[in-house]
Amino acid sequence: MPKIAVLPGDGIGPEVTEAAVRVLRRAAEVFGPELDFETFDFGGAAIDAAGEPYPEATRRGVAAADAVLLGAIGGPRWDGVPREIRPETGLLALRKDQGLFANLRPARVLEGLEGLSPLKPELARGVDVLIVRELTGGLYFGEPRGMSEAEAWNTMRYSKPEVERVARVAFDAAAKRRKKLTSVEKANVLEVGEFWRRTVEEVAADWPQVVLEHQYVDAMAMHLITHPADYDVIVTGNIFGDILSDLASVLPGSLGLLPSASLGEGTPLFEPVHGSAPDIAGRGVANPTAAILSAGMLATYALGRPEIGEAVERAVAAVLGRTRTPDLGGNASTTSFTEAVLANLNG
Amino acid sequence: MPKIAVLPGDGIGPEVTEAAVRVLRRAAEVFGPELDFETFDFGGAAIDAAGEPYPEATRRGVAAADAVLLGAIGGPRWDGVPREIRPETGLLALRKDQGLFANLRPARVLEGLEGLSPLKPELARGVDVLIVRELTGGLYFGEPRGMSEAEAWNTMRYSKPEVERVARVAFDAAAKRRKKLTSVEKANVLEVGEFWRRTVEEVAADWPQVVLEHQYVDAMAMHLITHPADYDVIVTGNIFGDILSDLASVLPGSLGLLPSASLGEGTPLFEPVHGSAPDIAGRGVANPTAAILSAGMLATYALGRPEIGEAVERAVAAVLGRTRTPDLGGNASTTSFTEAVLANLNG
Ligand SMILES: [Mg+2]
Ligand SMILES: [Mg+2]
Repeated sequence: MPKIAVLPGDGIGPEVTEAAVRVLRRAAEVFGPELDFETFDFGGAAIDAAGEPYPEATRRGVAAADAVLLGAIGGPRWDGVPREIRPETGLLALRKDQGLFANLRPARVLEGLEGLSPLKPELARGVDVLIVRELTGGLYFGEPRGMSEAEAWNTMRYSKPEVERVARVAFDAAAKRRKKLTSVEKANVLEVGEFWRRTVEEVAADWPQVVLEHQYVDAMAMHLITHPADYDVIVTGNIFGDILSDLASVLPGSLGLLPSASLGEGTPLFEPVHGSAPDIAGRGVANPTAAILSAGMLATYALGRPEIGEAVERAVAAVLGRTRTPDLGGNASTTSFTEAVLANLNG
Repeated sequence: MPKIAVLPGDGIGPEVTEAAVRVLRRAAEVFGPELDFETFDFGGAAIDAAGEPYPEATRRGVAAADAVLLGAIGGPRWDGVPREIRPETGLLALRKDQGLFANLRPARVLEGLEGLSPLKPELARGVDVLIVRELTGGLYFGEPRGMSEAEAWNTMRYSKPEVERVARVAFDAAAKRRKKLTSVEKANVLEVGEFWRRTVEEVAADWPQVVLEHQYVDAMAMHLITHPADYDVIVTGNIFGDILSDLASVLPGSLGLLPSASLGEGTPLFEPVHGSAPDIAGRGVANPTAAILSAGMLATYALGRPEIGEAVERAVAAVLGRTRTPDLGGNASTTSFTEAVLANLNG
């Protein structure tokens, strides 16, 4: 029986995670298999309970699980604690422990919700893009790095295995979707871009069913605004992925709609893009859409059941057409929204 | 008398440059001072005439001038020539010769033309942003750089004088505009970002009338789509500037509307962002807007006459409200559009 480690975390984390777990339980009834959920302290809640954000019991639970479902962490309450035991430090430790080198951020404009997008509706319609960002290498981690009085420097460096493994994750995701992969670099100027492109081309041989194309990062930023609906999966390095996933995240028009996955060597992690929103925590009005869609990604990428992920997306889209939480101008509670999703979840 | 070196170049370059020169001549009549124009071969036209894209006579003319007005270069006709004498190589040599380290790209949504933007009209309205990109340092030029079988690397490196001089250009531009400057880096992750931020802060002391704020590059990409009208001048490094200036360039909705300037140690260069469009060259239908606005930037940044630059912008905006070339769905010729601008050019 697949084991899910549930890390509700802080702020609205427990509320939205509860909603996501209810959706996964219902999906298990409809589609199978049965799932085993165990809840662990994490983030600020773990600091309060155990004096550290990622206690040993949580660490063991994560390592033993098939997937982690995380709510959100942090809040002003823990802003004063030393950096080594901040909530965010716990998340970095979890990602490192589990070797999570690929971050997946879908940005989808749901039918009927085009009006939320900053783009004209005719451009927003049908947008369904997944950014796969390399998360543990590139400019953010490359050596040498440093600063003197006179200058400062960082290194964008990628090894062949680093590019290969994130490319495989991206091809695999594309094979589960519309079978189009766009690899993004700056091969016309940077050696590391040329190396990235060449390595992705080599990996492509194992995915003949996926159509691969290449784009320069500056052109890709333009295309994401002028014709975003033409793209399916986009794979890129750490900083380009940071920029492009944030850029793509504005297309649906609300941060409250965006799930994410972090995949790698160990237990994969699924979490909403939004934060812990301490200002509305405990009031029962948090939008659980991102957490529920993260649960859908869990089914697709950790359980290998994309049909469950799709059913969750369909149910959410159907509900959002008529029932919305206050952040989207509606008056549904977290619970009533979730129950509407449950009622729409079918095979 | 200020000397303008005119480099019409290839394709539609000569047509749009002629329009820009007519506008500058008329501006000189209205506002003074008298201007001295001299035309030189450049790009493909120079390859045909002299066997090289940047002949010695052009080089001397550029060095002796107060500003260069360039049309566009290149075309399929010169695709086969060796890299050392390609049209683009001539442009790189000119920029290097003259030490042009700052690239200025305005993106303005003109009143009445909001409908061309990919953004909703209410977000596009009032957008008037100027991206100042460092052009000769950073990741595109940093050493060490290279590639082996196993890995590849590039270096994002900035020295203090490199950051200071481009920051000065940006503060100076902001002082001529709405007096707000946004400096963009990734100081929360990169040493070179922290160094950039600190150096810009130091330079700020000389421009007390300009309000300085800082943004991370990923957040900036989002803001350029969600609330672009809030920004005035944005200054950033080479690759971030490449991405952000291309991103901002889609906001007005047509590449045919975008001028640019390259400033530095020597003679400044003004040119449209668009290419030589060989497919429509010689037919008298090219949109001269970008070249005319480049001439306006020349007045502002090379002649120190921002009131001329503004008058040119006003005239263009007035004309575009009712007269457009075919690329914007109208049926005006290059000449009739230009004459309409001339008729609207007043103090
Ligand atoms: Mg980011
Ligand atoms: Mg570019």
